Amino acid sequence: SESDREAHSGTQSSHRLLAYSDALISIIATVMILPVAHTKMENNEELRESVQLLLTTKIAVYLMTFLIVTVAWAAHIRLFQVIVRIDDCLALLNLACMMLITFLPYTFSLMAAFPENILGLLLFCGCVMVMGVIQSVIVLYAFSRPFLLNEQIQISENQNFYKHHILKVIMRVPLMCFFASIFSFIFFQLSYVLLAVVIFLPYISQSLKWCRSKAIGQVPESPDSTLFYTYLPNEPLSKDRVEAFSDGVYAIVATLLILDICEDNVPDPIVVQKQFGGSLIAALQVYGPEYLAYFGSFATVGLLWFVHHSLFLHVTKTTRFMGLLNTFSLAFVGGLPLAYQLTHEFPADSRNELEAIQISCVIIFFAGIFQLTIWVVALYNERETLHPYVRYGGCEHIFMLAKLSLYPCVALGTFFLTCILSKFSAAIFHLMEITVPFAFIVLRLLVRVGRASLR
Amino acid sequence: SESDREAHSGTQSSHRLLAYSDALISIIATVMILPVAHTKMENNEELRESVQLLLTTKIAVYLMTFLIVTVAWAAHIRLFQVIVRIDDCLALLNLACMMLITFLPYTFSLMAAFPENILGLLLFCGCVMVMGVIQSVIVLYAFSRPFLLNEQIQISENQNFYKHHILKVIMRVPLMCFFASIFSFIFFQLSYVLLAVVIFLPYISQSLKWCRSKAIGQVPESPDSTLFYTYLPNEPLSKDRVEAFSDGVYAIVATLLILDICEDNVPDPIVVQKQFGGSLIAALQVYGPEYLAYFGSFATVGLLWFVHHSLFLHVTKTTRFMGLLNTFSLAFVGGLPLAYQLTHEFPADSRNELEAIQISCVIIFFAGIFQLTIWVVALYNERETLHPYVRYGGCEHIFMLAKLSLYPCVALGTFFLTCILSKFSAAIFHLMEITVPFAFIVLRLLVRVGRASLR
Repeated sequence: SESDREAHSGTQSSHRLLAYSDALISIIATVMILPVAHTKMENNEELRESVQLLLTTKIAVYLMTFLIVTVAWAAHIRLFQVIVRIDDCLALLNLACMMLITFLPYTFSLMAAFPENILGLLLFCGCVMVMGVIQSVIVLYAFSRPFLLNEQIQISENQNFYKHHILKVIMRVPLMCFFASIFSFIFFQLSYVLLAVVIFLPYISQSLKWCRSKAIGQVPESPDSTLFYTYLPNEPLSKDRVEAFSDGVYAIVATLLILDICEDNVPDPIVVQKQFGGSLIAALQVYGPEYLAYFGSFATVGLLWFVHHSLFLHVTKTTRFMGLLNTFSLAFVGGLPLAYQLTHEFPADSRNELEAIQISCVIIFFAGIFQLTIWVVALYNERETLHPYVRYGGCEHIFMLAKLSLYPCVALGTFFLTCILSKFSAAIFHLMEITVPFAFIVLRLLVRVGRASLR
Repeated sequence: SESDREAHSGTQSSHRLLAYSDALISIIATVMILPVAHTKMENNEELRESVQLLLTTKIAVYLMTFLIVTVAWAAHIRLFQVIVRIDDCLALLNLACMMLITFLPYTFSLMAAFPENILGLLLFCGCVMVMGVIQSVIVLYAFSRPFLLNEQIQISENQNFYKHHILKVIMRVPLMCFFASIFSFIFFQLSYVLLAVVIFLPYISQSLKWCRSKAIGQVPESPDSTLFYTYLPNEPLSKDRVEAFSDGVYAIVATLLILDICEDNVPDPIVVQKQFGGSLIAALQVYGPEYLAYFGSFATVGLLWFVHHSLFLHVTKTTRFMGLLNTFSLAFVGGLPLAYQLTHEFPADSRNELEAIQISCVIIFFAGIFQLTIWVVALYNERETLHPYVRYGGCEHIFMLAKLSLYPCVALGTFFLTCILSKFSAAIFHLMEITVPFAFIVLRLLVRVGRASLR
């Protein structure tokens, strides 16, 4: 049987290794929002200024980390779509890779703090080069034991062609990093440009290609459908892993919220005794806005997960381009702890409070709109990527559209409300967030009634 | 087809909902180590005293949270072994449950900070009672749509019996909490006792029953094998979910380490200019021990995951008792960020440093020994729970024993070394941690050579 054969050859299904890698990578990508959220903001200062100060360093570090880590994650997916079975040796090599990936955020922190110093850059390039070497070792090892490989390659006659193609693609980025680290001694600004190009090249070329193909109407099909590492926007991306990665991001965001509550909102017994005459309830009432903000934010994260879950339930195949849009959506979801911090940090009825709500609305709007875009992109190629029920004319089509557009609409509406109503407050905003789940149930009823009346 | 039927009835596979719940619960269980690890310890103070101060409150909060959350998680598994399909309504109810679970750590923080005040206790009981109500609603809803249920129950004739049995079990804990909250107004110490009993009752009765059955040699078999919610130690516990939960804990622990590095070990540009003459390398050399501690701790977490992975690869069925042992192992794994903080916090060659290493050894020893115990327990019933290759006399038996006993042996050996050698330092300890992966490869070679020489 399958499991007998496995135990005998010492190989294992790679399922759990990949799940663990997804969990690690999603957490490391998201957790860098904490240094952003923990930045103390002065109340007397204008929010706009302090946010601009933040934007220049910490938010940049967060976004860079998120994008780089997801690029590394996409490379990891591609690698393990070729290598489908593992053994102890590959598991250990993969752990070494993970260790280097988790170290990347630190190199960004150094680059952001000391942009003129090349040490951060060198450390980053060093990490990437070592990762490239480890990945090459993984590929060479796997091709020396072909039973570890994808069945398509296993039965193929020119395994050597695949090996060289994959190695060439894998070593491209480390090689660029090697040049960047050499350039850094001569003219370090160029190295940063080189790095940015390296990192975003697949994304940029992908977007351009996609736009061109849509404009001309002619889709450049890969001649050999078994070719991996094509970097085409419709190259498949393991759906399981996209889901696992997204779950990790949503879970860590929801958890970071309560961590802040537990660390900051347990009053000091001495303060309670002195200021509140020993009444714990009176002392906790001060934290009322925090609790409301917590429940509101949790509801938003949970519901965004729910929408994501509903969408991917009907997606039958994930492409690289959908994965890219999903990454953008998740990068905004990862910003929610910052929104949570901002909305309860400022005194009620201040200009800062309104701006904090507007920032929250922007974050939620983009998180939702990118989810909607995933569906729209999927509809362009609906025969391959979508379940019949959510295609044009499918019975769930309208309901899916309603689900996906609920959050962007609510966020946009709230944004304009804050511009019109000066009395709008964080408390109202969080109460709105808590009532959205009920909107989903109302939505379902409305769609059902609407469909029944149409018949 | 399967997916057509799903879309038509609006039901969905519960797989991803459970994966998300596992991720959330594992992170919330582990993340409460952060307040413990972030406690600043004075260098001139004796470590023993400060650790004792920690032990009384923060470590207690961490352990209580970990245990309670895993009890809630076990209840969640049991519930979704009965309900195997979900729809939108169940997904939203489950999210509400998750929100309450993530709020539990805060009630413990309150209880620990204000043990004399009943507010924390009341909040906790309130959360548990609301969760009980939500779970009952979930059960009633699922039984009103039997296609959501487990097939065994779906075809059974007395569904009502199951419904009442499950509701009775679910409402047991909330009812006890109700009494505890009433008692708290009269004599609050009793309420704490009542809560402790409620929480540990299944564990205690389980351990007692298991010891008795082993002593007498007669295993009390459940008369009806389809009966769920038996609380017998050999009641099956979904293996997928035990793995997903463990992966979450290992992933978050590995990530918390780098988070500390990124938050604390990026030097201030002004300090670098003034104290180190603008040399970033000189400034970073101060953090040398931190980097070493990071790589050592990451290697330990990664390898403990690797051992766990190897073990569960050969486990064919997980029981409640194995789940309990796994929880204990994970609770110690969750303590590793504390060990990491301690080992690099104290000056070299101090008594504190040696004690910090000893604490790390104790944590690693227990994390490893509980993993070994899982295997030993599985061996007692090897026909049901283990793959033939790791049973007595199986070809992987010795290698598995070597893998599982490596960490306990290394930790024990290091502990005794710190007692004998006064020159032992944190640097040596972390270097040892980094070399352990190579020990795994040597181990594999040794076992192979040993087996070959025996033939």
